[in-house]
Amino acid sequence: MKGQTSSTTSLRVRLPAFVLVTEVLFLALYYAFVTYDEHTDAKLQSNETDPMANAVYRDYPFFVDIQVMIFLGFGCLLAFFRLYGFGGMVFNFLTATFATQWAVLVQGYFQFSGEDGKIHLGVVNLINAEFACAVVLISFGAVLGKTSPVQLLVMALLEVPVFALTECAVLKYLKINDAGGSILIHLFACYFGLGVTFVLYRPGLNEGHAKECTSYRSDILSVIGTLFLWVFWPSFNSALAMKGDDQHRAILHTFIALSASTLTAFALSAALNRDGRLSMADVQNVTLAGGVTVGASVDMMISPAGAYALGMLGCTACMLGYRYLSPFLARHARIQDQCGIHNLHGLTGLISCTAGICAILTASEEAYGPSMYEIFSHRAPVAGDPKLLELQKLIPGLQAGLGRTAREQALYQLAAVASTIAASALGGVLTGLVLKLPYLASPPDELCFDDELFFDVPPDYDSPVNFKSTVATEDSAIN
Amino acid sequence: MKGQTSSTTSLRVRLPAFVLVTEVLFLALYYAFVTYDEHTDAKLQSNETDPMANAVYRDYPFFVDIQVMIFLGFGCLLAFFRLYGFGGMVFNFLTATFATQWAVLVQGYFQFSGEDGKIHLGVVNLINAEFACAVVLISFGAVLGKTSPVQLLVMALLEVPVFALTECAVLKYLKINDAGGSILIHLFACYFGLGVTFVLYRPGLNEGHAKECTSYRSDILSVIGTLFLWVFWPSFNSALAMKGDDQHRAILHTFIALSASTLTAFALSAALNRDGRLSMADVQNVTLAGGVTVGASVDMMISPAGAYALGMLGCTACMLGYRYLSPFLARHARIQDQCGIHNLHGLTGLISCTAGICAILTASEEAYGPSMYEIFSHRAPVAGDPKLLELQKLIPGLQAGLGRTAREQALYQLAAVASTIAASALGGVLTGLVLKLPYLASPPDELCFDDELFFDVPPDYDSPVNFKSTVATEDSAIN
Amino acid sequence: MKGQTSSTTSLRVRLPAFVLVTEVLFLALYYAFVTYDEHTDAKLQSNETDPMANAVYRDYPFFVDIQVMIFLGFGCLLAFFRLYGFGGMVFNFLTATFATQWAVLVQGYFQFSGEDGKIHLGVVNLINAEFACAVVLISFGAVLGKTSPVQLLVMALLEVPVFALTECAVLKYLKINDAGGSILIHLFACYFGLGVTFVLYRPGLNEGHAKECTSYRSDILSVIGTLFLWVFWPSFNSALAMKGDDQHRAILHTFIALSASTLTAFALSAALNRDGRLSMADVQNVTLAGGVTVGASVDMMISPAGAYALGMLGCTACMLGYRYLSPFLARHARIQDQCGIHNLHGLTGLISCTAGICAILTASEEAYGPSMYEIFSHRAPVAGDPKLLELQKLIPGLQAGLGRTAREQALYQLAAVASTIAASALGGVLTGLVLKLPYLASPPDELCFDDELFFDVPPDYDSPVNFKSTVATEDSAIN
Repeated sequence: MKGQTSSTTSLRVRLPAFVLVTEVLFLALYYAFVTYDEHTDAKLQSNETDPMANAVYRDYPFFVDIQVMIFLGFGCLLAFFRLYGFGGMVFNFLTATFATQWAVLVQGYFQFSGEDGKIHLGVVNLINAEFACAVVLISFGAVLGKTSPVQLLVMALLEVPVFALTECAVLKYLKINDAGGSILIHLFACYFGLGVTFVLYRPGLNEGHAKECTSYRSDILSVIGTLFLWVFWPSFNSALAMKGDDQHRAILHTFIALSASTLTAFALSAALNRDGRLSMADVQNVTLAGGVTVGASVDMMISPAGAYALGMLGCTACMLGYRYLSPFLARHARIQDQCGIHNLHGLTGLISCTAGICAILTASEEAYGPSMYEIFSHRAPVAGDPKLLELQKLIPGLQAGLGRTAREQALYQLAAVASTIAASALGGVLTGLVLKLPYLASPPDELCFDDELFFDVPPDYDSPVNFKSTVATEDSAIN
Repeated sequence: MKGQTSSTTSLRVRLPAFVLVTEVLFLALYYAFVTYDEHTDAKLQSNETDPMANAVYRDYPFFVDIQVMIFLGFGCLLAFFRLYGFGGMVFNFLTATFATQWAVLVQGYFQFSGEDGKIHLGVVNLINAEFACAVVLISFGAVLGKTSPVQLLVMALLEVPVFALTECAVLKYLKINDAGGSILIHLFACYFGLGVTFVLYRPGLNEGHAKECTSYRSDILSVIGTLFLWVFWPSFNSALAMKGDDQHRAILHTFIALSASTLTAFALSAALNRDGRLSMADVQNVTLAGGVTVGASVDMMISPAGAYALGMLGCTACMLGYRYLSPFLARHARIQDQCGIHNLHGLTGLISCTAGICAILTASEEAYGPSMYEIFSHRAPVAGDPKLLELQKLIPGLQAGLGRTAREQALYQLAAVASTIAASALGGVLTGLVLKLPYLASPPDELCFDDELFFDVPPDYDSPVNFKSTVATEDSAIN
Repeated sequence: MKGQTSSTTSLRVRLPAFVLVTEVLFLALYYAFVTYDEHTDAKLQSNETDPMANAVYRDYPFFVDIQVMIFLGFGCLLAFFRLYGFGGMVFNFLTATFATQWAVLVQGYFQFSGEDGKIHLGVVNLINAEFACAVVLISFGAVLGKTSPVQLLVMALLEVPVFALTECAVLKYLKINDAGGSILIHLFACYFGLGVTFVLYRPGLNEGHAKECTSYRSDILSVIGTLFLWVFWPSFNSALAMKGDDQHRAILHTFIALSASTLTAFALSAALNRDGRLSMADVQNVTLAGGVTVGASVDMMISPAGAYALGMLGCTACMLGYRYLSPFLARHARIQDQCGIHNLHGLTGLISCTAGICAILTASEEAYGPSMYEIFSHRAPVAGDPKLLELQKLIPGLQAGLGRTAREQALYQLAAVASTIAASALGGVLTGLVLKLPYLASPPDELCFDDELFFDVPPDYDSPVNFKSTVATEDSAIN
């Protein structure tokens, strides 16, 4: 068997054809539509420009941190399978790179194009594109090990525009507060991924798969990925918050929520596992729940204790989801959610949205001072309202808002949740149907979670002593 | 044996009970006592606040670097045992998270509470809490592999207040210079850890333990941890230095001292080892000695050559400590110092304090200019002294000091060293006694350095080929 | 065989002797010649100094990123051999530390010495020294696994001055544009390394070596190194660019070029490999080609599409180099280029220089505005030219240039390429001759790529099951 690849899964023609065609297309689009923004165009600098005031110094530190999360954090985290470490880490690399490039174009079209019809590029666009990329990678978690790189690229090709359209619609028409992206990033990514995996359902994998296991070293690697995500998550949640105290709060709350969810995860892992032993899967995933849960209200005045409570709550929901909901969904709803993204991004995202709505409903000038109208910018009075002029004395540069009440804003948040879930689930299902098309090199059941299918593996891969002997009994039990 | 856990070491009830009780307590304390500081409270921003002047932009980059050191640096470094990689990395994660949360409260009580009796929180508090956390993790090094997670959490619960109290007393009453924390962090952590391990002495481990060994992959992982610490150590040593040239010098000196100690470590490793072969344990630990040695004088004008010499000196002491002192202490003083923290943090810390005292004694206005009274702020003239007014013309905003002479300041430094060692050793011994209480799931001798006790391990853990065959002879020798 | 070391390769005397002698020498030189610069000297701060305007806040973030690349990026990347993981990672650590220390002195002598004949030190010197260090590490790639640590240190000792001299001559006399260092760093490092490996030619290794292979885990580790380099490469290429829009563009272009080259690398890897399987060696190396290719023009107005095209082009050349040129050079030109640095740094460097020349020839005030004379500072009018005064109104502080035309500047770039290649190749050959001297512990052919020669290895190193069984057949074939 070694050395053979069935012609239906060979990447030799499929991958280069897909990649090179899209690259030439991207190059043409970059050539035709992408130019510099006012912080990167040499021509637009005048003798009054202060080089150190360039946006790069505000944005680049956050960009770098998010880069580490995307490439090293996700990459290591997804390499937890014993025989699919190459796939987890390398397909993450490939998909992330592709998704970011594509997102620069698509988000540029929807959000950043200037009056000249061009996309104006700076590091801030890259941060936005990395968020779109994170969306794709979260969805990828649902189908890890069961998809070819070609399928993943097609998924990215389709998911990015659906995401960018939803993002644009929600931000432009519903105008919501979602600094950490719990609604737009986590909920969207989760339900899109579930939609895809629903369509790609493989009954043959429902009883488990001999290769669906970890090794001692792969478990440690995956924890390293978790730690990268943990350490830089405050940058993720605060990157697009307003500068100053808002961004500061976002950092603080994210750290506190992550801390609280980490402790809770350890406690629940010991309580719920066989013999009170800790499970590495819990350490790898459930510890991170707090970062999502605090997302929608991360820049608001929710108090440190509020962030702490959200971390505990989100972690508990996430853990119970892994124990009880995921097996149920796999068995009864055809949803095989490989990495449990519904627990880490879906349930926590829903809690986060609820918390955000509560924070909106209870927000008052007493707690925020006049800057309430900056954070909840759509609650600022409409242009012409005398209250606006008064506020503008207190906050120079405050822009006119929509005069929404707290209740109205809360309803818009709800509408955003509903429409995001609807759009993402529908988009996911349709994308899943596309991924079922032939020629996309979908791996057969028996070669899922197996690096040998798509990689030239070194001689110690799957060596008899390392692997086969230990799973032999399981194998025979299954057959 | 596989799959069994003796009821005395099961975490099923102990860990969740301890964690959830402390979490509820922490939540209550956060709720009652923790609020925002002037950089995170929306209400305190006025129309004259410049968002980009928020403290977050000064503090956050250093905070992130220290986070990487704590979670990834320590985590990987402590995962050097062949069969205790989960324990090293994951208990570090758990303990660090717990210690930081707790330190925010305890240090807040001692140092940061405002007139309203509340703890005012910003990223700067998190940096301080991470230092307290580093203290706990260094002490953890002394008992690595021989303690349950419950014991580690109890240790953190007790060590953090003792540390915070000592820190507060030393800074408030003795008023010392210790920018890199050689006295307060390294010496305290070292002698506390030695106190704990002294009480937890296990005669059965004195002849070595079959599982107390590394593997090829675990050694590499541990070096990665060392490199994380090495790369970000300048941020650790400079995070709380005064802004401007002081912080700049701290970064420069730390880099130079680390460089010098790294080269020295390689030279001594080849000179002292069997057949001139390099030892990975030396690469993992001794290379870092310079970062500690330069700590107490890191922001002073010790000259680049001074930093270089300190790096070489500290490294030599550390290396000789590993070779000769640690075995001696284990055999004759009941001090089983698992990671050799006495060499990396104790001996180097003492050298650092001595160097700091020398730097204080030789400091002159000739070398420092008037800013000498900023760096050695307690040598500034007392309020009312006409010299103060004169100096304030040269350094606007200089605060009145205590008018100490160099000699007096040096004596206070000495007093700080003595009292820190006394407090930490005593605290460590008492903590050790608490850790001997039953119900804390202390592992039996034969299950030390063994992940199977507390973790659900994957099937390739301790596989016969990978491990037993190589240690079989040792095993039989022991039994 | 285990446990024995032939006396000709023992490091016991050689390494300590070399290191301690050079350390004492360095210490003396630091003592005699190195002092603080205006941003680190306490005495030079006045009451008008703004601490937050200290250069450390501009330089340190870039320095840290480059540190991660040097120690973690290169370290992990070079640890790809199955039985030479210690060597790859640890010799990188040793060599990098040594080279940086030495470069601070040598570059200080050539570039940074003040009127007092002293080297004035700040973080900016460390950044420059890290670039010199990167040069040594790239050259190291050519001889990885075939050199002792003593040889590597001797190589660093010789390469750094040759590099610093070339750098100084090119920057001072030819005055070229090379923000990303494609000419000075990559081309120099490449041809120096090829010169060394040419002299160290080992005919016995031309038919392959039983230990010249990777393992599953070492391949993953190496990809982690690639990802560190990938993520922080924008900081490398932009660290010394002018502040403001120039640095911003450098970041943007590097990211785009790396993205494009990554996708291309995946496509070509699948197209050119056996059965369409991806090769990890391609993922580890070829993905990075874009970062080099964009280097020489990285701060110019090459347009995002230009950066994209350069990434694709560089990657294609690099990949074809690995497939066809490297085997040819090894067989017919005595150039055994272990890591293929000629592909990743040489071919791409040449393309980068060509692109830089094109960018220079097409640069116009229409595209750049008056700041053209800042970026291409040698094209600014000479002192006294009335055009200079006019420009100085538009760009306050513009300095007089040399009044070069675009064509002239292009010719100087060409001259720089030619002289850099000549100096580096010659320096490499001479260094290679020195490395052939006896007493430098050069490993015999059969112990190349073998950690046991220089390290105390743990018991699972080279365990029969892990390695010997799989290569037994190759071994017997060779013998």
